[in-house]
This record gives sequence, C-alpha cells and structure tokens, in this order.
Amino acid sequence: MPRTPTDARTTTPETEADPAATPVIGWRDGAVVALDQTRLPLHAVQLTLTTVDELVDAIKRLAVRGAPVLGVAGALGVALAALRAERDGWSAAYLDEQVERIRTARPTATDLDVGVRAVLPALRQGPGAARAAALSCLDRTVEAAHRIGERGADHLAEVCGAGPLTVHTHCNTGALACAEWGTALGVIRSLHARGRVSRVVVDETRPLLQGARLTCWELDRAGIDHRLVCDGAGPFALAREKVDAVVIGADRIAANGDTANKIGTFGLALAARHAGIPFVVAAPETTLDPTLPDGSAIPVECRSEDEVTHVGGVQVAPARTRALNYAFDITPAALITAIVTDRRLIAPPSDPSAW
Amino acid sequence: MPRTPTDARTTTPETEADPAATPVIGWRDGAVVALDQTRLPLHAVQLTLTTVDELVDAIKRLAVRGAPVLGVAGALGVALAALRAERDGWSAAYLDEQVERIRTARPTATDLDVGVRAVLPALRQGPGAARAAALSCLDRTVEAAHRIGERGADHLAEVCGAGPLTVHTHCNTGALACAEWGTALGVIRSLHARGRVSRVVVDETRPLLQGARLTCWELDRAGIDHRLVCDGAGPFALAREKVDAVVIGADRIAANGDTANKIGTFGLALAARHAGIPFVVAAPETTLDPTLPDGSAIPVECRSEDEVTHVGGVQVAPARTRALNYAFDITPAALITAIVTDRRLIAPPSDPSAW
Repeated sequence: MPRTPTDARTTTPETEADPAATPVIGWRDGAVVALDQTRLPLHAVQLTLTTVDELVDAIKRLAVRGAPVLGVAGALGVALAALRAERDGWSAAYLDEQVERIRTARPTATDLDVGVRAVLPALRQGPGAARAAALSCLDRTVEAAHRIGERGADHLAEVCGAGPLTVHTHCNTGALACAEWGTALGVIRSLHARGRVSRVVVDETRPLLQGARLTCWELDRAGIDHRLVCDGAGPFALAREKVDAVVIGADRIAANGDTANKIGTFGLALAARHAGIPFVVAAPETTLDPTLPDGSAIPVECRSEDEVTHVGGVQVAPARTRALNYAFDITPAALITAIVTDRRLIAPPSDPSAW
Repeated sequence: MPRTPTDARTTTPETEADPAATPVIGWRDGAVVALDQTRLPLHAVQLTLTTVDELVDAIKRLAVRGAPVLGVAGALGVALAALRAERDGWSAAYLDEQVERIRTARPTATDLDVGVRAVLPALRQGPGAARAAALSCLDRTVEAAHRIGERGADHLAEVCGAGPLTVHTHCNTGALACAEWGTALGVIRSLHARGRVSRVVVDETRPLLQGARLTCWELDRAGIDHRLVCDGAGPFALAREKVDAVVIGADRIAANGDTANKIGTFGLALAARHAGIPFVVAAPETTLDPTLPDGSAIPVECRSEDEVTHVGGVQVAPARTRALNYAFDITPAALITAIVTDRRLIAPPSDPSAW
C-alpha cells in the first residue's frame, strides 16, 4: 500500500502554544493535538499530529506521557488511523498494521493497549464512529480524574479539619498525566477550588524530575502556592513545614493495598507515619490489581543506569560506578491511611493482613 | 606593604595528578598541595597553592572542602602565610591580616577557625614552627579518622555478625572530607580492610551530588563494590538490597543525641528503623555540642534555591517556582542505634529522654 508524502514527514508541526487554550491531549480538525511534555516547563509547545508516524514518534520520545494520557493517545490514535485509511485508501490489513504500531509504541504501557481496544469495535464503522468512541474514552478519563479529585478532597476535609492545608506530593499526577485535573494532583486541585490549599510541597522526583518540571508547571499555572524540594529533603520538609497530609498516585495496587508508585514514595510514607499525618493514595479504580496478593508479587522495573550516573546528559559518577535505578517502590498497606478511586474510598484497617 | 607578583597571580598551577600519589591536602616544597574536589570524579587535578590568595580562592570555590579538611587547610594556611611573610618581608600587621583572610574564607566554617587557632601560638616563632604545628594538626585529623573507622568496624562486626556486610551511606564522609580514611566512609574502609564489605549502597546526595561525585570516586579507587542510587530510592534500596547497616557522618550532635547531617539522612534513618537494622553515626568527638539540649536547638541552614531549581546550571523548574533547600536535616536520637567517635562508642538508650 503506497504511503502519502505526509505519512513520511519526519518533522511534526509545532507551535508555541497558549497553554490555557491547548489541551494536554485532544482532537482538532482531523488531528491529534498534544502539549509536548519534553519541552516543559520552559516552553509550552503544541504538537499537531496528523499521521500515525507522528503520533508513534511523540509517544516513543515521551512528548506524550502519563498512564491515563497514553490510554487517550491510543484511543485517538485509532481514530486518526481510521481517518487516514479513508482519505488515503488504506487496505484493512494496512490499517490493522498501523493500529498495532500505536498499541505497541511503548513496550509495557498497559494503558495504550486499553485505549486502543476501547475504540477497535468502532474501527470498521468508519472515521466518524472511531472518533466518537475515542472522544468518549477521553471523556471517561477526564471524568474519572474529577471524581478522584472531589472524593479525595472530601476525605482530606474530613480527616484534616477545617483550616487550609499544606499538602506534600511526589512526581506528576496532574492534568499532564490524566488529560485534565489529575489523580493526586486532582485532589489538590479540588481542595484548591474550595479555597482549602495553603501550600503544596513537591519532591523534584529524580531521576527524570517530573516533580520539578511538570508538577511545578501545573501548580504555577493554577496559581497554587508551592515549594520544590530535593527528594532527600522530602521527609524532613514534611515535618519542618508542618505538612497536613501526603497525597500520591499509584502505578499498581495489590489486593492487600500494598502500592507501587514512583520511586521515592516509600520514604515519604515512612515520614508521614512518623509525623502521624494521613498518607493518601489517589488512583483510578483500574490501578487496583486483585490478581496480585501483595506488594511482593509486583514486578519492580529497573531502568537504565545512565539516568542516575548522568544528569542532563553530563556524567556525574566515575565511569566504572554501577547504579540501581528502580523505577518505582512498594509502599506497604500498613503505611497507607486511605485509597481514593473514581468509584470509592478504601480505608485499610490498621491490621494490613485483614485488608 | 607591597605584594610580590606571585601574590597577585590569579591562576593556580594545576597538574593532572596520580591520585595514589596525591594527598587530599598536604604540604610539599613550601606549598599547600590539594586535590581539586570540583574536578572529581572525571579529573584528578592537583593544586599547588603557593600564596594566600590561591589558598583562599581554593576554599571559596569549594575545591578544598569537608569540615576536617577545612581545619587542616586553615592550619596549613597559617604555615603558608608565615613562610610568605619571611620571604617577602611582610609586617606583623599584614601577616595578621592575611591569616584573618584564611580564617574567614567561608562564612560559617567552624573548622577553618579551629585549624587557624591551632597554629597561631607558633606563628611568631617563624615558618618552621608554624609548619610543624600545622602538620601536627593534619596528623591529629588523620589519626581521629582512623580511630573512628576502627571503632565503627568493631561495633558493626559485633552487632551485625560474621558475614560480609552490605552497608548504606549518604553524602561524602571519606578521605576527601577528612584528609585520609574518613568518618562513616572510614568505618566502611576499616570493614573492607578486614574483608567484611560485600557492597556499599550510596545515595547520590542532591543537590550537590557529593555521593555520586566524591564517595563513588573513593569507593571505585579503593576497589569496593558499590551501587549508586537516587536519594528517593534510598529507603526502598535499603530494604530491597538487604542492607545490613546504615553508617552516616554528622555536622553537629546535640546533648541528647539528636544529629544534624546532610539533607536526606532522616529518611534513611526512618527506613533503617522500619527494616530493623543498625543506624550508626560516625563523627569526631568535636562534633558533639553539649551546649545544645536537643535537635530543636540546632539552627538549620537553608541554601540557595538555585541549587534545587537548576541542575548543572540548567533551569529545570518554572521561573516563578520557589524552592526549599535545607542544607541538612535532624535525625532524632531515638532512630540512632550508636554514635562512634574517635574517643568512644555511645549507644543511646531506647528511651531518648534519658539520653
């Protein structure tokens, strides 16, 4: 099947964007539009992705990232492929091949797969039906984030009392990860909308600095007072800054409540317990994995050592030094005071074996 | 008083050094020689400091750093000033002025002051006496480090049992900080000399990365197996890598045992308690400050926000984002299982109020 010239284009149209008018990810005039997350916080650049090549490239180079956002990207990607198939006269086999490229653009991103599958039933009904199914997937993602935010804010208002709160968070769990609002950062946004946020303390989140680069960008734009700290300073800042609660996201939650989240979460959970403050996990219901009995069953990915031995491309450790680069850690359920999802609030009993 | 051309020289002679033959700080042929710690780990550069200007500059730009090393630099600096005074015919008043410049080269470095004062009584007896007093100060510093190392190794052998140990440490507390051997890293060196080290886990120690840059350099050169981790990964790595003990240094220890040390120590102490392993503080006896009843009396310095918002000179957070850059944190005595000094082993009772 011949490919059109635009399919072979290697440079994606990008424009310096007004972030207020640019969706994290969306559909506009027959294209997937997205904020390039690799350019934040210094530049808000809008990508206009009109081909499968461009979309797959944006996913591979992490310009489009965050589990729920990847689900939406998978869904919108199928709609984009359906549109190109109609315009360029693709065969069904070639269309299937292009959809498969989207589905597997990141090796272990379950959400991409889920997003693609959500739109597949509409694929053969043409681009209009595929687009409608993809936009419905986007709507559901955004709705889940708002529900998590509201339920988490209700919970914190209940357990922390009436005054404005200082909240500590880690990594990025906001609109940039969820298309809108956020999970843990959604809880903070919902609290802020009620005038209940005094200050947010944000860990920088080495090695990739999502806290410094992305969460601070979102908080700055939302006008929420915040302070950035190095990850090692998190536990001390929690005590010193009189933090009222810690709210974090999750990559996977085992049946007993043990939670895998971005590396650095466990130390913060220990500090929250030491300080006697709530430690709340905010995540979509889909993050709960009842097939895993406890945290020991969650496989822990180790990423490239270079992310630790090099900072911003500059070598900071001796050439022979080896690094351990755990992508996430496991926080035991016993340290978690509540799990908030889009469907419910789960408060683990104090005895985690009964959870 | 006229200054000689060499006093006005702004470029210090530096040579690519054989680290095995280069002292961290020492005296050679009428000059202070030192490893430039800003160039590690990629380059081992020896500075030959022949003027007070050069020495003060090396201290100010952190080429010479680490509390005990600064003490030695202060002592050797007085010897250098005495030598220049004799060669260049300085007045007593001008000599005093130069000594004062050395003493105050870093605003809050107590050790510089202590080192300078140790040599002052010999100053008027000429350069030979000053040099002898300074070298004696260097000897005492090195001797203290070796004593701490041996005592700490004895303690860990006693509490951890017979097998080789995996030890976790933070920041740099080695030869680069102590002229030779080290405090916490001295304990690890002494264990290694006994064939008792299996592996060392090292926190990178943001914001200035002394763990990645300096401690890994020392461990690499000593042939000690080690793994570098991001600070946020420390608590999880401690559990995951089956660490046997944590050994850290100290900036100041209050009368009740509460310990100020490099930011990131407190989270590691919480993780050690959670894992039920020893958490040992190794420091010279001079670090104990009986005038401070507890940790709440220790002033906590906040350093420049730029160290957090920028990494390697590159801005990583939004322009309006503010940072909290605590230089150190306070670990409560209740989390410390032993304090090892050059004079004694202090094991706090389980009730810290009785300490």
